[in-house]
Amino acid sequence: MGGDDAPRIVVEGARLAQTRFPTARFLMFGDEAALKPLMTDGDPLSRVTEIRHTPEAIGSADPPAQALRRGRGSSMGLAVRSVRDGDAQVVVSAGNTGALMAMAKFMFKTMSGISRPALASVLPTLQGETVMLDLGANVECDEDNLIQFAVMGAALARIRLQIERPRVGLLNVGAEELKGNESVKRASQVLRETPLPLEFAGFVEGDGIGKGVADVIVTDGFTGNVALKTAEGIAQLAFGLLKRAFEHSAMTKLGYILAKPGLRAMRDHLDPNNHNGAVLIGLNGLVVKSHGSASASAFANAIGVAANMVRDELCDRIAEDLQKVYPSSPGVTQAATS
Amino acid sequence: MGGDDAPRIVVEGARLAQTRFPTARFLMFGDEAALKPLMTDGDPLSRVTEIRHTPEAIGSADPPAQALRRGRGSSMGLAVRSVRDGDAQVVVSAGNTGALMAMAKFMFKTMSGISRPALASVLPTLQGETVMLDLGANVECDEDNLIQFAVMGAALARIRLQIERPRVGLLNVGAEELKGNESVKRASQVLRETPLPLEFAGFVEGDGIGKGVADVIVTDGFTGNVALKTAEGIAQLAFGLLKRAFEHSAMTKLGYILAKPGLRAMRDHLDPNNHNGAVLIGLNGLVVKSHGSASASAFANAIGVAANMVRDELCDRIAEDLQKVYPSSPGVTQAATS
Repeated sequence: MGGDDAPRIVVEGARLAQTRFPTARFLMFGDEAALKPLMTDGDPLSRVTEIRHTPEAIGSADPPAQALRRGRGSSMGLAVRSVRDGDAQVVVSAGNTGALMAMAKFMFKTMSGISRPALASVLPTLQGETVMLDLGANVECDEDNLIQFAVMGAALARIRLQIERPRVGLLNVGAEELKGNESVKRASQVLRETPLPLEFAGFVEGDGIGKGVADVIVTDGFTGNVALKTAEGIAQLAFGLLKRAFEHSAMTKLGYILAKPGLRAMRDHLDPNNHNGAVLIGLNGLVVKSHGSASASAFANAIGVAANMVRDELCDRIAEDLQKVYPSSPGVTQAATS
Repeated sequence: MGGDDAPRIVVEGARLAQTRFPTARFLMFGDEAALKPLMTDGDPLSRVTEIRHTPEAIGSADPPAQALRRGRGSSMGLAVRSVRDGDAQVVVSAGNTGALMAMAKFMFKTMSGISRPALASVLPTLQGETVMLDLGANVECDEDNLIQFAVMGAALARIRLQIERPRVGLLNVGAEELKGNESVKRASQVLRETPLPLEFAGFVEGDGIGKGVADVIVTDGFTGNVALKTAEGIAQLAFGLLKRAFEHSAMTKLGYILAKPGLRAMRDHLDPNNHNGAVLIGLNGLVVKSHGSASASAFANAIGVAANMVRDELCDRIAEDLQKVYPSSPGVTQAATS
């Protein structure tokens, strides 16, 4: 029931996802009266979908604490619980991000060896795509959080970018070793010295995100959220200025018409819909957050992210990686035992 | 002697600035043998320029601490000292940012009422321009720093954007009052309740930078540096993708030729050269940092920023504003007396 045009987008997204993942089955939580008319009897989707009715839904402005207290019976609450109870393998929601994170943290609990989960997503770069985390789950992070984010981000990059040994960079205010706050300096030391199933790329500056200098960019949730939204805002600024540029004169308007086939690829690459599906990573349960304004196709992308994480057993792979670094990494050890 | 093509760019920049500020006079510090040939005897610039020779120069990779210890006799060191000694009213440099900040802090000291100076600059937005600070002078900032940055940023916006009562926003991970770390929450409370010569716009998210939702964006130096560079990187990404879009086919190439006049305005607006001139604000002396890769025209812009700050007496205006808020603002009072 979450997102700007729910539940229509969710059902249509599932229908699109069904063509890409024919073995997927869906539990849909929400208002049956709203959901039912969106699927006809002959609909292939209805054959793999079970609707679980609830009249309750979390509002997009509800504070997370309130959602946690009173939203257990809501569509979001029941969907998250279905994963905890083993009825479903992953939950996908376009609803209230704060509420979803709070519920998932409460019901799934963090994985052994992980102090805090992180919100991770994929961003477009000049090279292709990069995984970035934390995008806002934790406003303050210490070095252990950053080290764990690096391990989790690398695991996610293997699945989403299909890179076996991803280059992982720490976002910082300079590339030199002396730069930055204490957390990034200490995290860098550990990541540099510990044998990890990733390529540590050292410090990465903000412009490295767009350039694609790393496959995984690790940062605290405050900086990551600001950087992500700054990037989205500047992309919008560029499109706004581009629109003005083409509206400059009759000649530039004609130029637009001619250039349109090329411009479409640019728009597609920068469109957040095409990189939809943020993951709250580090919990004993998988949860994917779709943009609230996602289109049906974008929601299908989020379902695809979810399906791939299940297929590739993300949680198990993170647990294995943590196991590998356990004996030699003081950062991870400390966090695992604390 | 600082910047990618020094001292040629610096001298040419001064020559351009001379046409815009006919009453300006220049002290140029550096290698006389390199500087002299760039000005002929009949050159109007040489009539208002005094060259002060030094063979020493700070390298672009020299650590700030080393520059501070051994760079007193360098072109940068002597230039900063000339302001402290009253020989010049403002220093402009395209050299090593860290070294320049360290020297300026050491020689000028912070203003009364200011705990730490901030690096401020002007960024392009969809509406026009916005002042942003801190862009990297302080990797960690408390609420008093942020409050003082707000006062200083507003003073700078009056001069650079000619807005008498600038809208000042605090960069945060959400617009709601409960969001963010303790520093931004406490700074917001003080800014909301204190009568200040500015319009407090509350919390601003990263995408607000490009949208231009505030005239001044206040943040800590870690987040600000990452956001600034992320913005620069995404602008480069947009241009990179745009280039590919126009190279798509013969037709899109023709489209580019037709659209060129409109695209030039877009490029100009996003070009950092046209917003050149970062200011280290909050010291008893004025210092302007030009991009190291600035063109002569961009360096002239940085000189223009310097000239306007002198003309509008930036330091005096900040001192007055701090005086106004002194009795009623616990944040600023505390910092002023600590």
